[in-house]
Amino acid sequence: MLKASLSQYFPILSWGRQYNRSQLVSDLLAAVIVTIMLIPQSLAYALLAGLPPEVGLYASMLPLVAYGLLGSSNSLSVGPVAVASLMTASAVGRVAEVGSMGYLEAATLLAAFSGLFLLGMGLLRMGFLANFLSHPVIAGFITASGIIIAISQVRHLLGVQAHGDNLYEIVMSLTEHLGDTNFATLAVGVPVVIFLFWVRKGLQPVLEKLGMSPFSAAMVSKAGPVVGVVLTSVAAVVFNLGDRGVALVGSVPSGLPTLSLPPLHHPAWQELLISAIFISIIGFVESVSVGHTLAAKKRQKISPNQELIGLGASNIASSVSGGYPVTGGFARSVVNFDAGAETPAAGMFTAVGIGLAAIFFTPYLAYLPKATLAATIIVAVLSLVDLSILKKTWNYAYSDFIAVASTLVVTLMVGVEAGVACGVFASLALHLYKTSKPHMAVIGEVPGTEHFRNINRHQVVTHEEILSLRIDESLYFANAGFIEDRIYALLEEYPKARHVVIMGTAINEIDLSALEALESINERLGEQGIALHFSELKGPVTDVLEKTDFLKHLKGRVWLSHHQAIAGILAGAKEEQS
Amino acid sequence: MLKASLSQYFPILSWGRQYNRSQLVSDLLAAVIVTIMLIPQSLAYALLAGLPPEVGLYASMLPLVAYGLLGSSNSLSVGPVAVASLMTASAVGRVAEVGSMGYLEAATLLAAFSGLFLLGMGLLRMGFLANFLSHPVIAGFITASGIIIAISQVRHLLGVQAHGDNLYEIVMSLTEHLGDTNFATLAVGVPVVIFLFWVRKGLQPVLEKLGMSPFSAAMVSKAGPVVGVVLTSVAAVVFNLGDRGVALVGSVPSGLPTLSLPPLHHPAWQELLISAIFISIIGFVESVSVGHTLAAKKRQKISPNQELIGLGASNIASSVSGGYPVTGGFARSVVNFDAGAETPAAGMFTAVGIGLAAIFFTPYLAYLPKATLAATIIVAVLSLVDLSILKKTWNYAYSDFIAVASTLVVTLMVGVEAGVACGVFASLALHLYKTSKPHMAVIGEVPGTEHFRNINRHQVVTHEEILSLRIDESLYFANAGFIEDRIYALLEEYPKARHVVIMGTAINEIDLSALEALESINERLGEQGIALHFSELKGPVTDVLEKTDFLKHLKGRVWLSHHQAIAGILAGAKEEQS
Repeated sequence: MLKASLSQYFPILSWGRQYNRSQLVSDLLAAVIVTIMLIPQSLAYALLAGLPPEVGLYASMLPLVAYGLLGSSNSLSVGPVAVASLMTASAVGRVAEVGSMGYLEAATLLAAFSGLFLLGMGLLRMGFLANFLSHPVIAGFITASGIIIAISQVRHLLGVQAHGDNLYEIVMSLTEHLGDTNFATLAVGVPVVIFLFWVRKGLQPVLEKLGMSPFSAAMVSKAGPVVGVVLTSVAAVVFNLGDRGVALVGSVPSGLPTLSLPPLHHPAWQELLISAIFISIIGFVESVSVGHTLAAKKRQKISPNQELIGLGASNIASSVSGGYPVTGGFARSVVNFDAGAETPAAGMFTAVGIGLAAIFFTPYLAYLPKATLAATIIVAVLSLVDLSILKKTWNYAYSDFIAVASTLVVTLMVGVEAGVACGVFASLALHLYKTSKPHMAVIGEVPGTEHFRNINRHQVVTHEEILSLRIDESLYFANAGFIEDRIYALLEEYPKARHVVIMGTAINEIDLSALEALESINERLGEQGIALHFSELKGPVTDVLEKTDFLKHLKGRVWLSHHQAIAGILAGAKEEQS
Repeated sequence: MLKASLSQYFPILSWGRQYNRSQLVSDLLAAVIVTIMLIPQSLAYALLAGLPPEVGLYASMLPLVAYGLLGSSNSLSVGPVAVASLMTASAVGRVAEVGSMGYLEAATLLAAFSGLFLLGMGLLRMGFLANFLSHPVIAGFITASGIIIAISQVRHLLGVQAHGDNLYEIVMSLTEHLGDTNFATLAVGVPVVIFLFWVRKGLQPVLEKLGMSPFSAAMVSKAGPVVGVVLTSVAAVVFNLGDRGVALVGSVPSGLPTLSLPPLHHPAWQELLISAIFISIIGFVESVSVGHTLAAKKRQKISPNQELIGLGASNIASSVSGGYPVTGGFARSVVNFDAGAETPAAGMFTAVGIGLAAIFFTPYLAYLPKATLAATIIVAVLSLVDLSILKKTWNYAYSDFIAVASTLVVTLMVGVEAGVACGVFASLALHLYKTSKPHMAVIGEVPGTEHFRNINRHQVVTHEEILSLRIDESLYFANAGFIEDRIYALLEEYPKARHVVIMGTAINEIDLSALEALESINERLGEQGIALHFSELKGPVTDVLEKTDFLKHLKGRVWLSHHQAIAGILAGAKEEQS
């Protein structure tokens, strides 16, 4: 019992027990490939977040170990990611100056809050809350973030100063500083962008033609950014680019991070806490959707609540080791998966790889141009941009389109947190609005069946003394008044009706407000000599109604099927006549 | 055309055209009765709002005229009401000192904001938004407000100082000042409370026994508070109560209010605007529910959007004539209705009555004890308190209970605005939570019918190669993942199933997120040799699906009825075998 619940919270106790040599080899290989990919990415995302490059490396060590111990996905690769880095820059930029000690402190505190929030949600089993972020909202948000990130990096390609939290601010600021463009920087950055785009699309076929296996070709292609890093660093030394105004990374402290508690008593902690909640939710949703997709390919499962715990622990680990908010990244998880990672141990080995890099590799970073890192970011995030979701939702349903468009526009024009908040609000509000004005159909029997359909869409049989009505929604406070008004209006269209039969197939719930509306309908109809009936009420709904005296006061009856209702009412009417 | 739309916005153009002598007599009689009832009430509610007594009278003149021109209810009586007065006290108390000039200015500004907000909502036809305040939330809020108001008036009965925005603060403050109790004040207030309770319950039968008609007896009973006012004012003069420490109303300016624009540039306008929105929404909901109830009794209708316009104009009128937020009151509207008011003209005549009182009656108010007004308030608001809603919802459904209990507790313990916000949030969140984990039933055919029901509740026929599934909810982003997981889990319980047929009777919508989930289900099932079918999909849902290529990729079919689906699949299987 204890064992079972321990291994529920520590998945490593399950997979670790059966860990074998073949898995070890697979995991080690994946770790080497992901490490090579992760080094330039970690540096680049730290730059995006406005943090010193070593912070990116720190965020790629302990967090991976923590996730390995507690995470439930065998393929997810945790670390700094583009969107969380942008959100960190935006949140921390509001409370501290870039480059100040306070900036770094605020970033680690953000990771701590993020970790505690995720962990708390996981322990309270609130993983289902992520479902309230709809696909269109996520798609709109990721696309808008990708655009903002790409545009925000243009300043590093031009070698100018430019800032802003949204598209308008960034573009205005860039335009203003365009005259300061450093052409040496441009000469480094633009070729790297072109090179990386080519590596992404064109290198793999070339390597395959040269006789490499598709797997090796794909994996070698992932090392493109490393090649860019090496070549431009060498160029910086050879051409003395630092003196020509090209911004270089500069000296980076060597070695592993020291452990320390984040400054929980930060003066702006309340503001950071709110941002941490946004970053956590977005990071969690991104991570879980990647985890789900990859697990499904191997017929495996991930547990959303355990993922909250794993990501929470990762962020706490990041926070105590000088890092910033992390989550499971899409690109690197796919590489991890494709490279053959079989267990979370692959992530732990990657952490060791990054650790070795931090010890032995950092001195060489001094000559790395920032433009190279910016190019890495631009090429990485442009793959996130997918405007086809606008067309897809436009063709599909106006509510999905409004959700995606409002998220996209607000994220671009106001900022990332406002964009997500707007998207969630819009999608929930639209859903509630639709359910508050439900579709109601007058129905008749399809000849030769016991099946009832909308009189406007099907050739059906009706009886003028019976108004058969299908309400296509649960009855609850938001639509109780609407339904009441609609029924009275329908009775004016069908003045000969002596019976109203509501078909309950789509009524999954009747809340107290709706019950009161039904009582008033029943009474008012009764005064006019019209009986209210129900058919095909579902078990859970009948259970609730039977707790009240509504069914006793009902002028009509509750029928098992609509067919029986019509037959029964017609038979009763005939009896009365005879 | 123009005429029609003019009389849509100015209902007076419809009813005024046919106004006749008999309606005039009825309206005049109702106006006299309501005026007599309204004078002490207006003074009392101004006291409750922390405002000078004449402000209550001002709020009972022009607003009634404005509502008469624009309102759509024939019975609603507009003016100061208990809950809006409490909310005004709470909102204005946060930005100004009671008794200061700023306090009065803030109150008129609150009315202006309230009026503009209501008017804007009406012109945008947003009346339906009020539906999102459920009955349990309103009931919980009104009950809690009644308790807070009654307790807050106890200080006037004791003649002590005590303040607070919620139950805890008020009770603590009262306890602290209990030692300062003025016994002369107590000797005035307590008998009035007892007298008014007796008038409310016991006077009418006595008058009827004395030979009065039930109608006259009921109307005379409404004059109880006026009797209390006169008797205690006389007592104040005779026993020189002012010198014995009994707080009196004191000198009240005579005459009609002067017109002036409210100070829109108030320093705390943002805070007041938010409070105005709360007051408006609560006031509107209260007013519309009274209006609906009374209109239904006469088979009349009110238009929620026109009510927004009428109440908006009322509040603007209140604001420019030195008043504070007003709305349609329950008690006075019922009196207006019972007294025979036939058109909104009754309200206009009432305004004239109050105007005459303001001109000729105010000098006599100097000796009126505040304890008498407090007693009037206490007796009036205790009729709002109805704790039975707790028991009713407890027996009915846990979600309704949580909504009412959280509204009640937060209103009492934190304050009125927090209470409403919490109630709306809780009821919407509970609704969304329920729809995010929908009920799903495995179904079978009821023998001898074409009707399918839950296998756990009914004696039904099933086939092991077909899993018939009814999903009791629309498919949308919040439940798409849940449904996907549940279907896979069910297939593990029914390993022999080769066909899954989803019955679509309760599926009113499939959004893009849910469509993506269905695509992934279809694909995964297809890989396992299982065909996904749908039956009884509704017209609007089929329309949307046909815009995509989902139905083309579907491994199974879409059937008109579930009965046909089962028969068709079984026939197909037999064909394959033979």
